[in-house]
Amino acid sequence: MDLKNYISDVPDFPKEGIIFKDISPLLASPEATGHALELLSKGLHDIKATKVVGIESRGFLFGTLLAQQLGLGFVPVRKPGKLPGNVLRESYALEYGTDHIEIQADRIKQGELVIVHDDILATGGTASAACRLIERCGGKVVQCNFLMELGFLNGREKLKNYALHSLMHI
Amino acid sequence: MDLKNYISDVPDFPKEGIIFKDISPLLASPEATGHALELLSKGLHDIKATKVVGIESRGFLFGTLLAQQLGLGFVPVRKPGKLPGNVLRESYALEYGTDHIEIQADRIKQGELVIVHDDILATGGTASAACRLIERCGGKVVQCNFLMELGFLNGREKLKNYALHSLMHI
Repeated sequence: MDLKNYISDVPDFPKEGIIFKDISPLLASPEATGHALELLSKGLHDIKATKVVGIESRGFLFGTLLAQQLGLGFVPVRKPGKLPGNVLRESYALEYGTDHIEIQADRIKQGELVIVHDDILATGGTASAACRLIERCGGKVVQCNFLMELGFLNGREKLKNYALHSLMHI
Repeated sequence: MDLKNYISDVPDFPKEGIIFKDISPLLASPEATGHALELLSKGLHDIKATKVVGIESRGFLFGTLLAQQLGLGFVPVRKPGKLPGNVLRESYALEYGTDHIEIQADRIKQGELVIVHDDILATGGTASAACRLIERCGGKVVQCNFLMELGFLNGREKLKNYALHSLMHI
């Protein structure tokens, strides 16, 4: 099964000149989703990780699946103002300006091994901010895990201090 | 296992007078998540549904799990401007003003049986808008499925034409 057949290219979305990678056909197929999940979790059974962190909102999709498949807890990283309690915040660069993400400080314990999941690795800004949040909680990132990697944006460079696993390379 | 022990009450969040129901402790426990998933999917194995629709973004968490557990496709309902292609849009009332959600029109086929999932049933506005989207695609909603129901907001009334399943009642 070639998972790329389940990713649809949408030209000029969300704006002109961008080719949007739509994972909806993948999600709509339980077989393709199951297959992607098998491949995403490859090698992770042997790592003594205890948490999967998924980045809002598309990182929630396979993030929860991956956590449950591996028998690990799931921790959401969310947009600002969505998580209650004692939250930590990190910023990351956008094309114009910056944005922020947050985590609940007490969700990751000192020394916990953590897998970070998002659907697409683009510039690596969000994933790298998520790694910093985990480290501020005292956790150790054992893998950055993606469905897809847009190689031409070189996000891999920003995550060079971490093990990286992407199913599809574009 | 009492799932309510995994929901944390946060007073005055996101604003004064609101008690926020935080499902993060539930997500952080793989056992509690697995147990909730078993209970959410109860009775659904015998229904000939083919899709689970999850509402952005917290409906993505158990929505994808539920779909994969039942061997069904997952279809996201998203905030405006997030989904590419031929999308349908419905509005729903907020405390002040209205908001919108969208679905890709070709994800649900004529006559398909669909389960709608979100984490919390509050006023029922979003879930009811999601049901209208599914029906405009030609699908039939066979169950509205929630982790939690805030009974005092009477969302059940807005969904009275649908089968309704909530794990926890508050």
